[in-house]
Amino acid sequence: MVNKAKKLSIGKQLIENLKGENIKDYLRLITSDPHIAGTQNNKKVGEKILNLWKKNGLENVHFVEYEVLLSYPDFDNPNHISIVNRDGKILYKSNGTSPVIFPKEQGAPNAGIQWVAYSAPGENEGEIVYCHYGRKEDFEKLKKLGIKVAGNIAMIRYSHGFRGDKVGFAQKFGAIGVILFSDPAEVAQEGTDKAHVYPNAEWMPKGGVQRGSVLHQFGDPLTPLTPAKPDLYKSRTIEEAKAAGILPKIPVLPLSYKDAYEILVRLSGNLVPFEWQGGLNFTYHLGPGFHESGTKVKLSVKAKYEKREIRNIVGYIYGKEEPDKYVILGNHYDAWVYGSIDPNSGTSTLAEVARAMTQTMNETGWRPSRTIMFCNWDAEEYGLIGSTEFVEEFEKQLNERAVVYLNVDLISANNSFDAATIPSLYHVVVDVAKRIPNPLESEIIKGRKTIYDTWIKTFPSNFPSHPEFPQMNIPAGGSDHTAFLNFVGIPVVDFRYHNASWSHGYEYPLYHSLYETKFLNEHIFDTNNLAVHRAVGQFWAELARVFADSPIIPVNITFYAETLLNVYVKDLIKDFEPLENGYSEAKDAKKQLSNLIKNCEEFLKQSHQLENEIQKIQKPNSKDNFRSRILSNRILSVERCFINVYIRPENPSKRHLLYSVSDKDLYSSNVMSGVYDAIDNFINSKTDKNKLAAGKELAKQISYIQAAVQCAINTIKEYI
Amino acid sequence: MVNKAKKLSIGKQLIENLKGENIKDYLRLITSDPHIAGTQNNKKVGEKILNLWKKNGLENVHFVEYEVLLSYPDFDNPNHISIVNRDGKILYKSNGTSPVIFPKEQGAPNAGIQWVAYSAPGENEGEIVYCHYGRKEDFEKLKKLGIKVAGNIAMIRYSHGFRGDKVGFAQKFGAIGVILFSDPAEVAQEGTDKAHVYPNAEWMPKGGVQRGSVLHQFGDPLTPLTPAKPDLYKSRTIEEAKAAGILPKIPVLPLSYKDAYEILVRLSGNLVPFEWQGGLNFTYHLGPGFHESGTKVKLSVKAKYEKREIRNIVGYIYGKEEPDKYVILGNHYDAWVYGSIDPNSGTSTLAEVARAMTQTMNETGWRPSRTIMFCNWDAEEYGLIGSTEFVEEFEKQLNERAVVYLNVDLISANNSFDAATIPSLYHVVVDVAKRIPNPLESEIIKGRKTIYDTWIKTFPSNFPSHPEFPQMNIPAGGSDHTAFLNFVGIPVVDFRYHNASWSHGYEYPLYHSLYETKFLNEHIFDTNNLAVHRAVGQFWAELARVFADSPIIPVNITFYAETLLNVYVKDLIKDFEPLENGYSEAKDAKKQLSNLIKNCEEFLKQSHQLENEIQKIQKPNSKDNFRSRILSNRILSVERCFINVYIRPENPSKRHLLYSVSDKDLYSSNVMSGVYDAIDNFINSKTDKNKLAAGKELAKQISYIQAAVQCAINTIKEYI
Repeated sequence: MVNKAKKLSIGKQLIENLKGENIKDYLRLITSDPHIAGTQNNKKVGEKILNLWKKNGLENVHFVEYEVLLSYPDFDNPNHISIVNRDGKILYKSNGTSPVIFPKEQGAPNAGIQWVAYSAPGENEGEIVYCHYGRKEDFEKLKKLGIKVAGNIAMIRYSHGFRGDKVGFAQKFGAIGVILFSDPAEVAQEGTDKAHVYPNAEWMPKGGVQRGSVLHQFGDPLTPLTPAKPDLYKSRTIEEAKAAGILPKIPVLPLSYKDAYEILVRLSGNLVPFEWQGGLNFTYHLGPGFHESGTKVKLSVKAKYEKREIRNIVGYIYGKEEPDKYVILGNHYDAWVYGSIDPNSGTSTLAEVARAMTQTMNETGWRPSRTIMFCNWDAEEYGLIGSTEFVEEFEKQLNERAVVYLNVDLISANNSFDAATIPSLYHVVVDVAKRIPNPLESEIIKGRKTIYDTWIKTFPSNFPSHPEFPQMNIPAGGSDHTAFLNFVGIPVVDFRYHNASWSHGYEYPLYHSLYETKFLNEHIFDTNNLAVHRAVGQFWAELARVFADSPIIPVNITFYAETLLNVYVKDLIKDFEPLENGYSEAKDAKKQLSNLIKNCEEFLKQSHQLENEIQKIQKPNSKDNFRSRILSNRILSVERCFINVYIRPENPSKRHLLYSVSDKDLYSSNVMSGVYDAIDNFINSKTDKNKLAAGKELAKQISYIQAAVQCAINTIKEYI
Repeated sequence: MVNKAKKLSIGKQLIENLKGENIKDYLRLITSDPHIAGTQNNKKVGEKILNLWKKNGLENVHFVEYEVLLSYPDFDNPNHISIVNRDGKILYKSNGTSPVIFPKEQGAPNAGIQWVAYSAPGENEGEIVYCHYGRKEDFEKLKKLGIKVAGNIAMIRYSHGFRGDKVGFAQKFGAIGVILFSDPAEVAQEGTDKAHVYPNAEWMPKGGVQRGSVLHQFGDPLTPLTPAKPDLYKSRTIEEAKAAGILPKIPVLPLSYKDAYEILVRLSGNLVPFEWQGGLNFTYHLGPGFHESGTKVKLSVKAKYEKREIRNIVGYIYGKEEPDKYVILGNHYDAWVYGSIDPNSGTSTLAEVARAMTQTMNETGWRPSRTIMFCNWDAEEYGLIGSTEFVEEFEKQLNERAVVYLNVDLISANNSFDAATIPSLYHVVVDVAKRIPNPLESEIIKGRKTIYDTWIKTFPSNFPSHPEFPQMNIPAGGSDHTAFLNFVGIPVVDFRYHNASWSHGYEYPLYHSLYETKFLNEHIFDTNNLAVHRAVGQFWAELARVFADSPIIPVNITFYAETLLNVYVKDLIKDFEPLENGYSEAKDAKKQLSNLIKNCEEFLKQSHQLENEIQKIQKPNSKDNFRSRILSNRILSVERCFINVYIRPENPSKRHLLYSVSDKDLYSSNVMSGVYDAIDNFINSKTDKNKLAAGKELAKQISYIQAAVQCAINTIKEYI
């Protein structure tokens, strides 16, 4: 392996070799046309990327294809709503298309068409109920208020959750259709007048809508647990997917706030609860019913399912010493329209990471010790389909070979770097961030020279023991890292830039709109020659290099064990308090909890032992590559220990015992969801018999975590 | 790594270093007392082995403990049967104990007690139905003949299947109790007179019985899928295990042919079908009912379940270059009585393998390149419990680290070496057998100098393409290799000596009897200073050395692919013939079958590519250890590809898509059981709707195999 002094200089050179100008060129290349997954246009984009990667020096660049169920609108007959009075007179009709603002960038035929994928087709007519964010608690509140959703159309605001979950709840509560709309309270916070929205600002103009998917599963709906290879059997039918709640049975369409206004302003019924009021300039009512009685809304949704080919793109920089260990960089390339932010801000940056790496190799003779694998996923927008099928196909190889998965979905803001990852990677993520120059002149002037400096200022630490760690979320279900972490137990980092004023989540005002074209990147939020894009690329490249070249893979098991014991288990002990008062049915569970504490203490102890071993091997004269590799394997397999495929085999999102995607919102993640679900169930059990069963289930769930911790202890030891 | 010339001489030296005299000493040491799993006596035996392994030079020798549900009789009140006439007069009462023949070897208190483990306790009384071997087809035949098993006691001959399956079928058909007996037709084939049975021959004397377990699962009944660590939660209760058919609900006891005679000779009813007649000197009747009407048989069975500690023993010879790759040697040490054959013929041989290896290391400076791991399992007799819990606990580590598992349960005969293994290991098993000197003077005289020469003579090839391969069965559920192969996909070899006249299965006349003491080994079947035991040990040691030292792990993927395509799939095509006649419902399945053929052809093609790579690396000057290791990993992961945990997650015995333990008989193995079950189901489906569903299920099952083959193709390639 390359010696330390030389490595540092390679890192620096790599960072310097990344050029914003190239990212800009690639962004223009990739976003010249709308490119929805499964279309000819997207096929062409895939080929552009393939050629670009080859040109940029990647090895073994190729497609990995699947045949999956996608969904399309009728591009010639846009979906729309009509407001019809009792006499059949159309009071208002939306036109189903967002207006083009820059014809040169946005003028492709039908580019502005408004739709969501996997909606059922339908011409349903009914009254409207305003359902706020469409979360479970919102529907429960409506129920409490005596407002019937069943038989009516649910009108739901975007934000605060995944749209597919909103539609799922609406369907469960009996809605016959769903309108999703972007409220100015979310997307035009500085006002809806021209001066404060696109193209004069980052906020949504009046005709814009958020597109998206309402699929309620990760991966192809017809091939659960198996890769959607064309020659394999599709084990599920569309009807079965509908029956299982994976595809909605009702029509869904998105509206702009201009169109939503026309409905909401006419709505009668009770006033909305105070916090449900949105940003349109009148007082919202809940419905159902309109001021002009007998008025209804008709949804006109055309939609068809199609089995189409999708193509992931894979390319490599082969590792010199451990070619079979993969540091994986991933981003998707399919988009709802032009995708200049989501995802091609990331796509163009990834292509530049590849170029800068091979340039650095050519200049210095460097080659990473482990393989760096580049992935560009297809059909992410439809439900992480490309990456999920890939993980399903290569599960065993990834299990054995993957070191880490580094995801960038998009770069949409310029306030601060922001990373979601798991505790074992906090150290390395923070270390690398400290080496990346700050792209913002305004920050540098204030003495914040690196992206880390702005990051810790913007999102200050919430780890009492580690004030130097900025806030980091656990990665959830919003992008292609999901299958890697939650299905297989591969450590992941998902990162981007965020605006501090937005929620610490994943949206930006023009998300999935027609206006995601290069003007937005170049002239609205990253005006200094895409310096922010570049910084993200620099972090990406340098983090990959560190994972590829460190003799011992920089996954910090001690901090993992500390977090488990001092945060997660400590929280759990607190959350056990309601069970303390004389519930004999929780006796077994309490015993398992106290056993779990002991297991975690032992895990922490063993992690210190491991650190001693690592110290020994990293002494200057110790050049035993075999030992480094073996030690790295032991470190890597810790995360795999927390994957248990037996508990809920049908639901891969629930395999990871510590981190899983929330049932209530795909964009959120839960810690130890199996245990917490069992606690809820215990508390809510009414009869003695149910209580006893719930207590046993809780004991069982804790025991699963124990077994995983014991596996982690076993796996970091040298021998069984 | 050691060069080739030197390696050969190390192999030779290792083979020569094994001494029969030592095996004899160890056998005496281990079999001095009865040692049932979970008892103080067995604990002592465990400690003896631990100390012996340490003395013999193994490293890191330690116990791995579990707390599992075992079962015991009342040793002071032996189980027995009484034949009682209508007046309550006892016509015959068995005494429940086998007579001691050599007091010095067999005289421990209660050693002769007759029982089977996990019987329900009970004092059931009823009439007898003779059920032949108690297989499914036997009970179906009785049903056809109009003989009611329900409400009666099933009297079943040992042999032709696992006793637990016999009891399971009897219970399913409504029997209120089961008597298992050893018929002279199986256990005293040369006559029951003294001259032709033990101690004058290898056949069962009149008072002997076969003990055993009737547990209907592998591993601890109370902790399915998780290791039975004392601090983990036991997810299943005894009542749940009974309800699930894992523990029998009825009393079961074993009888000698002396006691069985007393029942059978009194039995009335129809004459038995011709092939059901046994070896007792009268014509068998089916029952129910006795010649003296009103006579009944009363079973008196005392039995209790107990949670007890069991202890596996693990020890190592650490590998020099790849210490984290384990070549695993395994045998169990718990026994039903003294266990001089089952299992301690193997136990004593394994201890000698350890000693001979460390002696060879001391003499030559050799140390294996990979780690050699020695395992002595506890509670195998109860249902492979020690090894199954171990695999459950260390599943992830074994998945990553295990190279091969080499099992010897016992050495019980002297005709010929016999190995059960999977096709990818045929080459190496045959190669090594050719290097092991023949222990039989009578064979050497005939020019058969190696164990291979006798083997190919005794069990001639049934592989047309490889006439040099003796018949080899696929390993089934009879010993500790099961969890390794069927649960995790680790290649296994299970070997021993067999007598050619016995079935090519796993029993010998004195199996699980009181008479398994050292006299049997030393003076009946291995009289030349335990030369046969030694030969088994030599094969074991040399095979382990080959797996530990070969730069590329000697698993032959090409032959695996050939067997899959030219044997398994060819058979499947033939077995599809009944589906050919106009069944449109089988259309999908036929398409998948033709896709599978293409996948297998591609697998074969890729395996040739792999061979080219191996050839390159094995050229004299190629010393790239990293590349060898990586290539070996690719080879090893092929078998893992055939493990699919999602299809029947609750049943780990069904995880291996190609090889699984038969549902009808634990001692048999099935190829592609999921597919064949689906074919049966298709053929037996009566309605159109069922036929359609069965056709889809069949397509799905074939597609699972396809996906596994595709995984194998992916995994032997260098990159995704």
